[in-house]
Amino acid sequence: MASKLKTAILGATGYSGFELARLLLRHPGVETPVMLQRSGDTAVEVNLADMYPAISGNGGYPLQPWSWPELKRQKIELLFLATPHEVSRALVPEAIAHGLRVVDLSGAWRLREAQNRAVYGFHDADGVTAAALMKKAVYGLPELYGDCLPGAALVANPGCYATSVILALAPLLAADIVDREKGIISDSKSGVSGAGKEATARTHFVSVADNLSAYSVFGHRHVGEILEQLKLDSGELIFTPHLLPIPRGILSTIYVHLKQQMHAAEVESCFHDFYSGKPWVRVFATPKLPQIQFSLHTNYCDLGFCLAKDGRRLVLVSCIDNLLKGAAGQAVQNMNLMYGFKEQEGLQ
Amino acid sequence: MASKLKTAILGATGYSGFELARLLLRHPGVETPVMLQRSGDTAVEVNLADMYPAISGNGGYPLQPWSWPELKRQKIELLFLATPHEVSRALVPEAIAHGLRVVDLSGAWRLREAQNRAVYGFHDADGVTAAALMKKAVYGLPELYGDCLPGAALVANPGCYATSVILALAPLLAADIVDREKGIISDSKSGVSGAGKEATARTHFVSVADNLSAYSVFGHRHVGEILEQLKLDSGELIFTPHLLPIPRGILSTIYVHLKQQMHAAEVESCFHDFYSGKPWVRVFATPKLPQIQFSLHTNYCDLGFCLAKDGRRLVLVSCIDNLLKGAAGQAVQNMNLMYGFKEQEGLQ
Amino acid sequence: MASKLKTAILGATGYSGFELARLLLRHPGVETPVMLQRSGDTAVEVNLADMYPAISGNGGYPLQPWSWPELKRQKIELLFLATPHEVSRALVPEAIAHGLRVVDLSGAWRLREAQNRAVYGFHDADGVTAAALMKKAVYGLPELYGDCLPGAALVANPGCYATSVILALAPLLAADIVDREKGIISDSKSGVSGAGKEATARTHFVSVADNLSAYSVFGHRHVGEILEQLKLDSGELIFTPHLLPIPRGILSTIYVHLKQQMHAAEVESCFHDFYSGKPWVRVFATPKLPQIQFSLHTNYCDLGFCLAKDGRRLVLVSCIDNLLKGAAGQAVQNMNLMYGFKEQEGLQ
Amino acid sequence: MASKLKTAILGATGYSGFELARLLLRHPGVETPVMLQRSGDTAVEVNLADMYPAISGNGGYPLQPWSWPELKRQKIELLFLATPHEVSRALVPEAIAHGLRVVDLSGAWRLREAQNRAVYGFHDADGVTAAALMKKAVYGLPELYGDCLPGAALVANPGCYATSVILALAPLLAADIVDREKGIISDSKSGVSGAGKEATARTHFVSVADNLSAYSVFGHRHVGEILEQLKLDSGELIFTPHLLPIPRGILSTIYVHLKQQMHAAEVESCFHDFYSGKPWVRVFATPKLPQIQFSLHTNYCDLGFCLAKDGRRLVLVSCIDNLLKGAAGQAVQNMNLMYGFKEQEGLQ
Repeated sequence: MASKLKTAILGATGYSGFELARLLLRHPGVETPVMLQRSGDTAVEVNLADMYPAISGNGGYPLQPWSWPELKRQKIELLFLATPHEVSRALVPEAIAHGLRVVDLSGAWRLREAQNRAVYGFHDADGVTAAALMKKAVYGLPELYGDCLPGAALVANPGCYATSVILALAPLLAADIVDREKGIISDSKSGVSGAGKEATARTHFVSVADNLSAYSVFGHRHVGEILEQLKLDSGELIFTPHLLPIPRGILSTIYVHLKQQMHAAEVESCFHDFYSGKPWVRVFATPKLPQIQFSLHTNYCDLGFCLAKDGRRLVLVSCIDNLLKGAAGQAVQNMNLMYGFKEQEGLQ
Repeated sequence: MASKLKTAILGATGYSGFELARLLLRHPGVETPVMLQRSGDTAVEVNLADMYPAISGNGGYPLQPWSWPELKRQKIELLFLATPHEVSRALVPEAIAHGLRVVDLSGAWRLREAQNRAVYGFHDADGVTAAALMKKAVYGLPELYGDCLPGAALVANPGCYATSVILALAPLLAADIVDREKGIISDSKSGVSGAGKEATARTHFVSVADNLSAYSVFGHRHVGEILEQLKLDSGELIFTPHLLPIPRGILSTIYVHLKQQMHAAEVESCFHDFYSGKPWVRVFATPKLPQIQFSLHTNYCDLGFCLAKDGRRLVLVSCIDNLLKGAAGQAVQNMNLMYGFKEQEGLQ
Repeated sequence: MASKLKTAILGATGYSGFELARLLLRHPGVETPVMLQRSGDTAVEVNLADMYPAISGNGGYPLQPWSWPELKRQKIELLFLATPHEVSRALVPEAIAHGLRVVDLSGAWRLREAQNRAVYGFHDADGVTAAALMKKAVYGLPELYGDCLPGAALVANPGCYATSVILALAPLLAADIVDREKGIISDSKSGVSGAGKEATARTHFVSVADNLSAYSVFGHRHVGEILEQLKLDSGELIFTPHLLPIPRGILSTIYVHLKQQMHAAEVESCFHDFYSGKPWVRVFATPKLPQIQFSLHTNYCDLGFCLAKDGRRLVLVSCIDNLLKGAAGQAVQNMNLMYGFKEQEGLQ
Repeated sequence: MASKLKTAILGATGYSGFELARLLLRHPGVETPVMLQRSGDTAVEVNLADMYPAISGNGGYPLQPWSWPELKRQKIELLFLATPHEVSRALVPEAIAHGLRVVDLSGAWRLREAQNRAVYGFHDADGVTAAALMKKAVYGLPELYGDCLPGAALVANPGCYATSVILALAPLLAADIVDREKGIISDSKSGVSGAGKEATARTHFVSVADNLSAYSVFGHRHVGEILEQLKLDSGELIFTPHLLPIPRGILSTIYVHLKQQMHAAEVESCFHDFYSGKPWVRVFATPKLPQIQFSLHTNYCDLGFCLAKDGRRLVLVSCIDNLLKGAAGQAVQNMNLMYGFKEQEGLQ
């Protein structure tokens, strides 16, 4: 039997990192991942099971101090970074230099255009190495870039909102049936885990419960990803995120105009053709629409739509679990394709 | 001291009707309302306080059997109907014939165009009386039709979604600054009380909690109201309702294109001018946006907006409590203007 | 017309303080309260309506800098402290020395026994003034100490949990029908606003939603109040608080043994007799039980019970809104009795 | 390779039945279960994936019409009944007569004492067959009756509340350290899925959200199971269930008196000894307590406790996912032991 893949996670104490740890712990092709924390980390816990008793059944999962020599000693091949973007920006070049492959869950390496990266504070001044690395980085949306993953050294795992929007629109834009001049609108709603684990006035239970709020209108960091991946101009897209009173899940309601009158069956075919053979996208037969509950605790992106009687105005609904298809699940899906595992492995 | 207004409520056992009962019970200008139920009603309770212990502090509120002679005997002047639309459709002509004034909370008398009424099953065949009544009915949005209310015999209280959308768009359309050809989109989200008190698979706690779903895309009954009131063609509006995992509250995120480039201050003025002197609309200073929590348990419609840097694309956010400004509160506001009370009376 | 009462609130930015501000703003016998903040307060907002847009309809409510001369200049008669207990401990003696009457919502002045005060860090070393003040302080549960309120200079507003437990047990203990040796258990559950406005890992939406947890077993700070007020030994009571995934409301399920076999009607009489003439306690006819929803957004304490067939084992259910009867509403009720207002004034 | 176990589920459209279908679909030792529905069933769906789109990724799961010959033709060995108790009561004798083994998730075969069965309407008049079957039925709590499962023809899967209470108390009662005369109290709280899938006024989202309520005090159907399994007299236990505003999960807070003063370490040992080698019970090191979130979506029963300083009064906290350890997960655990699979198989 072939030896199992050796992986490490930096940042397993956050929501996405923990979800990733859970997935890797039961992935049949992967050894128990090494879980690391940097010395400056505020978390004083040294055992993941103390933070997340949900996984404490089989003994503990001690967090080990982060160091390059230790990664080498343990023969780690693949490093997952579930770290703030500025940490990922600093660590990735070193990791690549040490011969590791990396799946980075932050926004640090997703954006090719300098003006889009600016929202993260990354500029051209980052230097030659970063620029060269950025060119080699694969945007880790396996449905679009599956072919590039086997050879990828650095995979930039997409943003959660971006995943839900890009997967809904990619088939239509690829088929060139969207009237982009009329504008595309994504009205997106996310559960609170998308805002991260930090306790703030905004994530306080009393602020979120019995409420709904829009935020970062015309200014969310995921917009750059969506524009770049879909090759849209910034004037062609409005993206409005909302904070839902639920722990997890994203639903994006997306509005597009078609260039010419179409039948619902043609639109449905467009989706089916594009996602043929892609196990983690489910296309709903119109007029059935996805709901957040359907994709929760799964790695699916669920897509559905309604077409107006005029055959031109189209409402798309796209649902994912933001911690799985929107983060950790997609990271494992990327790993599966990087290392020749079955795309569904460890995700069912 | 002038004698107090004598009112009756049919349908006080539903969510809107009960909220209305609560408001009228503490309105200083109104006698304790007579609460009625028809003999065929499934509710076996005969006391409102048994159904809603929240109001049981001061003795009970017995529901009395419905009959025209009884209404006459008790000298009722104003009848509130919180009944299914087909019941309202049948009862209103009789009530008017008996000399009562009516505020109807159902959809029965809101729509002038036959094709819009069709969703409720009301057709021209309803006859001469209905047609004549419909012409006299006032659409009960006090911010738009306040002048017509003192003389109104029949007030059709608006739909909850419709209230949130119309109040957001009316100032812009009145100022003729919206590029209607580019289309208007209202992505609306409502708490579960909007779906009524009937227990269905859809309102089961387990179906709603931790979920979000879109429904009735291109086919919701409130669309006709919005089109008629805003004088839009059906091709100019997309209205998409969603079911939120909260008991009450509506947030509509509305997307419009302006005819020409504007400054945010100009847009803000447009709202302030239109709603000057209107106590139940609050305009938020951009970029502050309303949230559902802010308007909950109040009669306010909260409006806010963000304008894109191009000065053309505008995102509006409109919030109401669907049971107050979206139903019972608005009914009381209508009553206040019908009878010369202060517009805020009994609503604070 | 008599002049209105002049009040001030320190701490109106917290949950209880804000609720208090809301109540006083519409109390017919009270002038618009002066809202104060100390210079060291972290809140940078200077207007209450900025923090709580729900009340922004009628202009703003600026927070004024705290100072004794300013209170004097504005002729404040009654000071509400919605401050941390150590702040209340320090300010109350000064306030009394300045001739103000005080309603303190913290735990600072509730406890007569030094060993019970120890959980707040207050010891005998607090000195003569504190000891003297403590003797004069009235425990602000109006149903028990209503007679002492007109003359009270310092009212210690009870804890929320304590209110729900004491009101349920007081009638039974006064009638001496409880077998205290068999032990009394209060299994209490509270919404998250009871934990305060501070954003912590514990109040993060994702930690609370879809969850329930017990905490501070055998060690909650409200235990001392309950023991003192009910004259119980510490071995006679177990109090177990739980954190509910709701914003507000408390339900206490309380277990007692009766000294001798009784009929349900006798137990019911015991409650009715004790609370005769008390407008803010509702006794439910057994076997109907209170639910949190029934008392939410009201100042009621709702009491109900079930008696076992053996006539000895009794399960009590007590519900309050922790921010109203458990804090701000009770503070206003206390004020009403201190100043001769009707007990319900401003609370309906 | 040995052939896989052939199973069938009647009632896969309910919450527990569906959860069971999900588990069996990915159990490595079991063939795709045959899912059945009786002709009179109200569900018109003929495909499980239509009702629960969450599992629709890999094609559909058609529900087949129920008949004994069909079960025989498909060589079903083990039948799971997730049916109302009266259906289970009627079908089990026939199933046994047809040579099938049965795991019944209803309350039909859990109770040995006629007076306890009376709450389900089953009396001695059920006849000889039922009486004989009842004697052979194994109460399917694997931690207590694991040894009886390999030979069991009929396994009565325990109630959800009962599982949480029995597992918490069994070690203490087995060690004979509980002072039963002082009474045992279980204050239990359950998510709404425990109330079943039927849409009622009680399960309506608006009734449950922002609420907590006690119900069936001194009269819940699970009391009989708890008494029988723990060999308690009815006067020794008070069991009070509450309805939590969450979809799933149970937390029981249990109060007992110890016969003599003990140390926390001794109590902890008592639990560890009793559950040594039992993979699905986790004992928390005191004073850490389980929370509902920790056991959600797992088959664990989580146990923790706090001991008063007097070493006599003990508060236990027991958490399970009511649909897994409280129903479907436990059914699979039972199946695993009936057929010689590893106890954790298909449950991780």
